[in-house]
Amino acid sequence: MPAPAAKPDAKAKLLDAAMSVIRSKGYSATTVEQLCTAAGVTKGAFFHHFSSKDALGVAAAEHWSEMTGAFFAAAPYHDLADPLDRVLGYVAFRKAILQGGVPEFTCLVGTMVQETYETAPAIRDACERSISGHAATLEADIDAAMRAHSLQPDWTAKSLALHTQAVLQGAFILAKATGSAEIAADSVDHLARYLKLLFPPKPPGFDEKDIKP
Amino acid sequence: MPAPAAKPDAKAKLLDAAMSVIRSKGYSATTVEQLCTAAGVTKGAFFHHFSSKDALGVAAAEHWSEMTGAFFAAAPYHDLADPLDRVLGYVAFRKAILQGGVPEFTCLVGTMVQETYETAPAIRDACERSISGHAATLEADIDAAMRAHSLQPDWTAKSLALHTQAVLQGAFILAKATGSAEIAADSVDHLARYLKLLFPPKPPGFDEKDIKP
Repeated sequence: MPAPAAKPDAKAKLLDAAMSVIRSKGYSATTVEQLCTAAGVTKGAFFHHFSSKDALGVAAAEHWSEMTGAFFAAAPYHDLADPLDRVLGYVAFRKAILQGGVPEFTCLVGTMVQETYETAPAIRDACERSISGHAATLEADIDAAMRAHSLQPDWTAKSLALHTQAVLQGAFILAKATGSAEIAADSVDHLARYLKLLFPPKPPGFDEKDIKP
Repeated sequence: MPAPAAKPDAKAKLLDAAMSVIRSKGYSATTVEQLCTAAGVTKGAFFHHFSSKDALGVAAAEHWSEMTGAFFAAAPYHDLADPLDRVLGYVAFRKAILQGGVPEFTCLVGTMVQETYETAPAIRDACERSISGHAATLEADIDAAMRAHSLQPDWTAKSLALHTQAVLQGAFILAKATGSAEIAADSVDHLARYLKLLFPPKPPGFDEKDIKP
């Protein structure tokens, strides 16, 4: 007789509930009671795992970073040979996942930082780490594309990586305002168009190995 | 003896307080009591002017549209002769006004819609009208620039105008995450660079009157 499956623990249930409830209602409007109801756990269980609602907020941002980190690390655009194709593949992937309802495709940490940046520094910092950490996963490919295209521009790979996140965060706000993914997809298209204009096609006869360090 | 100056009315004080308090703390975390304290008015005065906190939210979004509408209408970029210069002038102006603390240069309606899009449709719609109404003020200049540069692209003046707002809203989120205007200014620079790449210089001998209707 097999051993009974381990019960998903209350902490995991609360973090999952937080991702869903906070993306719908916002952080401030979400109460501990609502999180417990959505997670199907007691208030005692909540305070066993989190000393306060803000502690849950920090943990939710960290959980978001781990979950989305694994999701994007497994995405197929990483397999493309050309670094610019990987960057454009990332942007196309971001457009492709604008699916389902607005709370499902928008960003937990973008929402939380908008509300808490002045009032809950620990949450703000966890959101900042999530956004800048995700942007950093694009930097090596942008940098390689800059070298492959012999660009020496007045902007850095880091600033362009962060700009992609600004466009996505702003696109989510337009989607929330209109209730539709379409307006967000249009902005992501503008972002892809910008990247293609920044990286003009390689000159004929160009050999990538010439520029490798 | 001069007549006593008219007292700024409670409604105006409450709308001014809303712009400041909501941009710092977010909409949901702001209470009617806090708005009354910040405005220096009684709760009775609040409910004389607004039937509910959400009614104040809608009025604050509309007040924001009027106030920013007048502010941008008076800005000097409108005086430039070339339509592309006016569009680039707008973006440069948006960068120039990233001054003061984060709550001072960020956007009331972007903040409110992020929190209320699922829970307060009247606020969401007022925020949507504010964002799309402001974007619409750019459309005629973008359209004129497209004709002046003989562009017939796979994007519209409207989508580019909305994209400028996506970049700004996202730039505000990055500013909130980092506590600094600098990261927002970097994204606005990327937006200006995109616009310059979309509108290449006119060919030699080009005469704008040839393309006028």
